Amino acid sequence: MSVKVLTIQESILGANEEKAASNRELLNKHGILAVNIMSSPGAGKTSLILQTTGHFQGKARLAVIEGDVASTVDADKVSERGIPVVQINTEGGCHLDANMTSRALDNLPLNEIDLLFIENVGNLICPAEFALGEHKKVMLLSAPEGDDKPYKYPPMFAGVDVVLVNKTDLLPYLEFDMTAFNKAVSGLNPNARIFPVSCKTGEGLEKWFSWLETEMKRGHQ
Amino acid sequence: MSVKVLTIQESILGANEEKAASNRELLNKHGILAVNIMSSPGAGKTSLILQTTGHFQGKARLAVIEGDVASTVDADKVSERGIPVVQINTEGGCHLDANMTSRALDNLPLNEIDLLFIENVGNLICPAEFALGEHKKVMLLSAPEGDDKPYKYPPMFAGVDVVLVNKTDLLPYLEFDMTAFNKAVSGLNPNARIFPVSCKTGEGLEKWFSWLETEMKRGHQ
Repeated sequence: MSVKVLTIQESILGANEEKAASNRELLNKHGILAVNIMSSPGAGKTSLILQTTGHFQGKARLAVIEGDVASTVDADKVSERGIPVVQINTEGGCHLDANMTSRALDNLPLNEIDLLFIENVGNLICPAEFALGEHKKVMLLSAPEGDDKPYKYPPMFAGVDVVLVNKTDLLPYLEFDMTAFNKAVSGLNPNARIFPVSCKTGEGLEKWFSWLETEMKRGHQ
Repeated sequence: MSVKVLTIQESILGANEEKAASNRELLNKHGILAVNIMSSPGAGKTSLILQTTGHFQGKARLAVIEGDVASTVDADKVSERGIPVVQINTEGGCHLDANMTSRALDNLPLNEIDLLFIENVGNLICPAEFALGEHKKVMLLSAPEGDDKPYKYPPMFAGVDVVLVNKTDLLPYLEFDMTAFNKAVSGLNPNARIFPVSCKTGEGLEKWFSWLETEMKRGHQ
């Protein structure tokens, strides 16, 4: 059975790569920087997006694609800020794919967007395998999850451009060794930028904002 | 493409159910209570298991199957306590299945076990769909993940016998509404038992131990 599954998986991934390339082409045509944000459930993806939309208000035009198994909890929070948002409900699916992303792009005002966040389904495993057409991959680790996560979920940590360690306001109450964590991430992904942040207090977010500004200026083709 | 994937998924699930039934038969033959423990990454599954093995020392014979994408971090911790343990590495797979469980059972001393914990891969989505042959399904929610998780991951909350809310030692620093959480879980699963616990301080664990004792006495066929 395992061989059969592998074959199907390869075929799905191949079709996904093609669709992701066409999404990327569409995004480039409109000069949009697209960032795929991944994490475990409840690590703070939506809080990060809300903090970031606040910072960029009047400086850049943002939009959001929200991915969830069910509910519009996150999309409602974004929409309250007046940010264009599309909710994808995967109905049990454990990751977004390029096809779902394409359908979401069809429902966004692409001529009025500079920076697009794609909030993936809360899962540290499968989202790492599926390209959406994004320019950058970002993951959040919630500090309470522990500093050993890179050893347990290597493909996620190996494949991203930025690792945000969120909920640093809780660090005084946790046994989280930031030096050991940095070493574990660097071993898998020497080029990853690591930003410790608190989306609750705002601590550390200036480096994240500055990274996004640089990436938007750079332009992506 | 979606129809094709659905068909394959059904066929996989059907084969999995058959294998799970044969695992269950084997467990029953040996009088073993098997508990499938599921959660997001870093919610405290291994800490729960370590606390529980400590409590039952001299009272019941425990064993553990550890599921992870990669690493033997968790199995090493269990093994240090002198508990029989088998590590399954899924190599990218996002859940355990009945076939993996069967292979792990082949490597455990079944005549010397009363209570078997199967620690699933850290993921709130796919593990909910795959029976392993267990008698009871238990999930941990880490309190920092937030009280809105039942709305986002309904199949997991709907399918379990017990929901443990872990890391209650952090509640003073979080905005976690336990009443709202209980209401959300009950809406999906009126029969679920909910135990707030801290695997760090031990707070609340006596109800969990007592539930396990009752289930072991009851016997499962």
